[in-house]
Amino acid sequence: MSDNQKAIIIVAGGKGTRMGVSLPKQFIRLGGKPILMHTIERFYTYDKQIRIILVLPEDQQVFWKDLCKEYCFDISVDVANGGDTRFHSVLNGIRLLHDEKWVGIHDGVRPFVSYEVIANCFESVQTLKAVIPTIPIVETVRFLKGETSTTVNRDEYCLVQTPQVFCSELLKRAYQQNYNSHFTDDASVVEALGQEVSLISGNRENIKVTTPFDLKIGEALL
Amino acid sequence: MSDNQKAIIIVAGGKGTRMGVSLPKQFIRLGGKPILMHTIERFYTYDKQIRIILVLPEDQQVFWKDLCKEYCFDISVDVANGGDTRFHSVLNGIRLLHDEKWVGIHDGVRPFVSYEVIANCFESVQTLKAVIPTIPIVETVRFLKGETSTTVNRDEYCLVQTPQVFCSELLKRAYQQNYNSHFTDDASVVEALGQEVSLISGNRENIKVTTPFDLKIGEALL
Repeated sequence: MSDNQKAIIIVAGGKGTRMGVSLPKQFIRLGGKPILMHTIERFYTYDKQIRIILVLPEDQQVFWKDLCKEYCFDISVDVANGGDTRFHSVLNGIRLLHDEKWVGIHDGVRPFVSYEVIANCFESVQTLKAVIPTIPIVETVRFLKGETSTTVNRDEYCLVQTPQVFCSELLKRAYQQNYNSHFTDDASVVEALGQEVSLISGNRENIKVTTPFDLKIGEALL
Repeated sequence: MSDNQKAIIIVAGGKGTRMGVSLPKQFIRLGGKPILMHTIERFYTYDKQIRIILVLPEDQQVFWKDLCKEYCFDISVDVANGGDTRFHSVLNGIRLLHDEKWVGIHDGVRPFVSYEVIANCFESVQTLKAVIPTIPIVETVRFLKGETSTTVNRDEYCLVQTPQVFCSELLKRAYQQNYNSHFTDDASVVEALGQEVSLISGNRENIKVTTPFDLKIGEALL
């Protein structure tokens, strides 16, 4: 049996189109270092024993290796191939799991998740089985309905972040289901089994860096 | 009749508690100058003829005057007293209107609204009567229902910004209604009359600066 009770699957499938550059967004430099390295370091710093599985499109893996050399980045990660959709990418990551008990799935372009949120997720999951971090919506929200729209009560909604952390037996079972376009995150895949997902507080800084605007925010946060 | 066809009511009622400091958030320095001055400058730069009405709690008005001297800030604004709620603050601003035809209402702590969005709002309102800028939601959204929650289709929702711009006759009529706690923004007040509100594209940088995190973003945006 593996010593590791915990694994994190870091999904970095981005092609970088939203960033307006050809470099996939996970490789863009933030504070002089590729975003993805910051993200991996977060989990490594949280727990040096956590098993890290990185899902990366096959045609980016040589580039990633070269980057690791260039930046003397030596945190040990296992690399899985990216798939056609996020669902298939996560599935490829799951296939590399050994017998870890708790598995998180995290966006490669969320380098600012707090250690506290990571810790809360991995602690809560031991009783709750499926845990995701969320933050309140601070803006007014409207519901779009055809040509018209109406204000809704924003207190009834929240925004979902990652890591989304699950009991690994449950996650594996969830990802045996056939792909469905309604699967927008891992929680929705697990919920399709009838399993309830629990919410814990995320940290607002835990943004997904996908646009030049986000990159400016990221530089400010560093 | 006034030369001005346009007016903007800038609502700055904040007491600053979310910022964790005693200085009301509209006065916090961003790039060495109070946020509120940046916001006012946006509209002045967009149109030097626009009438600017600033709604400010009565007990902050002397402080504001002193700030204007200190920063040699000489854009002409008319000051209205803040009310107990945002609704009442806006109402006090409306009472200072002359016969401007188009009136926008804008949050004092949104200094990053783009000139393009301001212009689009004031142009569109001339045919649409009620216009608000919105941006898509980029995160997964969940709907909270008692103890449980479910993923919703984020494409069916959007986030609302300001300025919210209206035909002034319509706005005045809307604000003759009795206050209702469901009035979360000006659009919802106008909609209560049965008037439809049109959405145009906002700019993502147009954040509401209300927390230390937002302030970091703001510094990065400057």
